[in-house]
Amino acid sequence: MWQYGFGIPDELFIRGDVPMTKQEIRAIALSKMRLKQDSIVWDIGAGTGSISIESAVYCKQGKAFAIEKDADAISLIKKNRDAFGTRNLEIAIGEAPEALANLPTPDRIFIGGTGNKTREVLNTAVNRLSSGGIIVVTAITTETVYIVQEFFKAHSWNLDMILVNIAVSRNAGEKTLMLARNPVYILTAQGPLSTTKLEDVLYGQKR
Amino acid sequence: MWQYGFGIPDELFIRGDVPMTKQEIRAIALSKMRLKQDSIVWDIGAGTGSISIESAVYCKQGKAFAIEKDADAISLIKKNRDAFGTRNLEIAIGEAPEALANLPTPDRIFIGGTGNKTREVLNTAVNRLSSGGIIVVTAITTETVYIVQEFFKAHSWNLDMILVNIAVSRNAGEKTLMLARNPVYILTAQGPLSTTKLEDVLYGQKR
Amino acid sequence: MWQYGFGIPDELFIRGDVPMTKQEIRAIALSKMRLKQDSIVWDIGAGTGSISIESAVYCKQGKAFAIEKDADAISLIKKNRDAFGTRNLEIAIGEAPEALANLPTPDRIFIGGTGNKTREVLNTAVNRLSSGGIIVVTAITTETVYIVQEFFKAHSWNLDMILVNIAVSRNAGEKTLMLARNPVYILTAQGPLSTTKLEDVLYGQKR
Amino acid sequence: MWQYGFGIPDELFIRGDVPMTKQEIRAIALSKMRLKQDSIVWDIGAGTGSISIESAVYCKQGKAFAIEKDADAISLIKKNRDAFGTRNLEIAIGEAPEALANLPTPDRIFIGGTGNKTREVLNTAVNRLSSGGIIVVTAITTETVYIVQEFFKAHSWNLDMILVNIAVSRNAGEKTLMLARNPVYILTAQGPLSTTKLEDVLYGQKR
Repeated sequence: MWQYGFGIPDELFIRGDVPMTKQEIRAIALSKMRLKQDSIVWDIGAGTGSISIESAVYCKQGKAFAIEKDADAISLIKKNRDAFGTRNLEIAIGEAPEALANLPTPDRIFIGGTGNKTREVLNTAVNRLSSGGIIVVTAITTETVYIVQEFFKAHSWNLDMILVNIAVSRNAGEKTLMLARNPVYILTAQGPLSTTKLEDVLYGQKR
Repeated sequence: MWQYGFGIPDELFIRGDVPMTKQEIRAIALSKMRLKQDSIVWDIGAGTGSISIESAVYCKQGKAFAIEKDADAISLIKKNRDAFGTRNLEIAIGEAPEALANLPTPDRIFIGGTGNKTREVLNTAVNRLSSGGIIVVTAITTETVYIVQEFFKAHSWNLDMILVNIAVSRNAGEKTLMLARNPVYILTAQGPLSTTKLEDVLYGQKR
Repeated sequence: MWQYGFGIPDELFIRGDVPMTKQEIRAIALSKMRLKQDSIVWDIGAGTGSISIESAVYCKQGKAFAIEKDADAISLIKKNRDAFGTRNLEIAIGEAPEALANLPTPDRIFIGGTGNKTREVLNTAVNRLSSGGIIVVTAITTETVYIVQEFFKAHSWNLDMILVNIAVSRNAGEKTLMLARNPVYILTAQGPLSTTKLEDVLYGQKR
Repeated sequence: MWQYGFGIPDELFIRGDVPMTKQEIRAIALSKMRLKQDSIVWDIGAGTGSISIESAVYCKQGKAFAIEKDADAISLIKKNRDAFGTRNLEIAIGEAPEALANLPTPDRIFIGGTGNKTREVLNTAVNRLSSGGIIVVTAITTETVYIVQEFFKAHSWNLDMILVNIAVSRNAGEKTLMLARNPVYILTAQGPLSTTKLEDVLYGQKR
C-alpha cells in the first residue's frame, strides 16, 4: 500500500484509455488546492481517479468523492482505490451537476472535465462550496479557459490562472530527447471572504 | 500557523532578494521527492527555505535540514521557520559539500543551488543518501543540466528529467496577461535497488 | 542600409518604450503571412513598426502600411523607416478601424494591437481583405484569443492558431541562463476560397 | 510553382517518414540566418529538404546545398525540388563532414542533424564558413545543446540560443485543443569579426 503523502508516479495507476491528469499537473493542482487533513474533496470528471486518490491519501481524516459517469472510468477508479487502499474515497456515479446533488458540502473542488456543461457545473460548485473553500479547474481548450474566466469574473471571485508547458525526458541512445506534453491551464478560484479574516483562511487556524 | 499539508502560496513566505523556488516548481519537486511523514530531507542551497519549510510541514515525524551559506538567506529561513512554526527544520550554516559532513543520513535530497560545485555536491549526495532514497535537482542553466545528466549516467542511476515552462496570469484592465517564468529543469534520480524489491521502494511498505 | 530579406535583429530597431513584436514572433508571423514581392500589407497597431519594416523590406514591388495612433510610436516608425531605407512603407496616423478607411485594398493584414476594438478591427479587416488574402493576429491575452476565435468561427473562415513560448539565453559567468518571454498566440485566418482553386492560392500562380 | 518568399506550409512538402523541421522553427531559423539574395547555404542533415527549399526560394541569385546521406530522404528532396521548382538547390549525397569537402564556400550553414559527429561537423563548418557568416543549429537533446555551446565557447564565437515551445491548434468539436510539439533549441553562431566593421556585417553593405 502507498505510504507516501503525495507524488504518486503515473505508472503506478491502473490505466485504460481513460485520460489521466499527469503527475506534474496533479502536483500543481493539489498544491493550489491547499488540502487539509480533514478536507472534503470533490473530484468532478474523475477519469482514472488520480486526483481523488492523491486527495484521499493526504486527507486521512477527510474524504474524497470521485464523480464520474463513464463505466470504464468508474471501473478503473475502483481498481485504483483498491490498489492504493484509500477507503476514504467514494465514487459518485453519474454526470455533473446532477450527480453532485446528494454529496456532502465540499471545501475543495477539482474540476478536470465537464464536457459541455462547464457553466452548470461551476454554478453548482460555487453554490455548494463551503465558505473560504477553493475550486481548481484544469483546462486544455482556450474556450474552456474563457468560460471559466468569465464565470468567476461575473461572480467577483478571485481567479489565479497559470499556463503549464511540460516536456519529459526519454533516452535515445546516448542522448536525451525531451517529449512535450500538451499545455494545460490551471485555474484556481476562491470566493470573497467577507466574514472571515484573510489570515485565518490562508493559515486555516479557525476552520 | 500553517495548517495545510503543502501548497504554501509564495506570498506567505518572508522574502528578501534571495531567490526562491516558486510554488509550482516546488509542488512538482515535492511530488517527485515522494516524501514520507518520517523522511529526513536535505535542502541544499536552501535560499529562503521554501522547500525546507514545505518538507518540514509534511514530514511531521521527520526532519528537514536547510543547508545555506549566505547570511541574508539564513536570516530569512529563520524568520520563515518562526512564521510557519516548523520546529523540525534545522539550519546547517555553511557551504555544500563541507556543510553536509555532520548531518544525519537523508532519504530525500533537494538541490536547488550548488554554485560551481555541482559535481562535488552530487558526489556527497550520492554517498550519503540512504538506500532507495531520492535526489531531486532543479536547474536553470543548460550546463548544470548536462553536468547532472553525465553524473548520474556515470553512476548508472536512473534519471528522470522534465522541463517546465510556466506563465502566470495578471489582470490588465478587462483582460488577462500571461507572464512567463523562466524555464526550469527538474531532475529526479534514484539509485540502483539491488537488494530491495522495487515494489517495496515504490510503495514504501518495508521502510 | 539593410540588405537581407528578413531576419532583422531586434537590437537594430530604434526603440523607445513602445512595445515591439520580437524577432522570433515576427519571423513566425511573417512566415504565416506568406508574403509576395508585390503584397500590399496592413500592419495594424504597428508599434515600433518592426512588422511593417520587415514586410516593406521583403515586398519590394509592394507596399506596407503602418497604422498607428500613438505619437511616440509614429515617431519611432519614421526613424526606423529612415534607418532601414524602406520607402515603400507608409504611415497611416490614427486609430483602427477608422484609420483604415482610405487605405488601398490589402492582401495581407497583420494585427498586433487593437486595444478594445478587436471585433470592429477584425470586421473591417475581413471586409477589406482581397480574395484569398491572409490575416495574422498576435494575442497575449486569453480574452483576445477567444474573441478572435469566435469571430472567425462566426464567419466560417479557416483559423490556424499556435501558442509560442520562447526563452532566450543570457550569459551568467560560465553558465547560460534561459530567460522566458511571455507566451504569444499567433492566429492565422484565411477566407473561404469559393471561386479560386485552392492550389492557385497556395502557390500563388494566378495572382 | 511557389511564388512567395518564404513561409511554405508544412503540408505542401512531400513527406515520408523522414523528420522535417516544422514551419515555425524553420521561420525562426531562416530569420536567424539572415539570408541575402545571393547567399550560399549549406543545409546539413537536410531530411526532407525544407530548409534547403525555403533558402533556395529566397536566395534567387544564390544557391542552397542539401547534404544528406539517407536514400529515402534524398528521394524526397528531389521530389520537393521539382515540386517547388528550385533549380538553385543542389543535393550533396553523403555524410557530413566528408560530404562537405567539395562544396563551395558557404556564408550560411544550417545544421539540423549531425548524428554522433556533431563536433566534427561543427569543426568543418567553422573552417569553411566565409568571414562574417552565420551558423544556425537546431537541437532537440540537451547533450547536443551542450556540445554546441562548448564548441563555440572554445572558439570564442558569439552564440545566441533560444528555446522554443510551440503548440498548434486542432478542432475538437466546438472547442480548440492545443497540441504540443517537442521543445527545440535554436543556436546561432557568428565568428569574431576582426577585419570587418560590425555595422557592415549587420547591414551587409560591403559584401
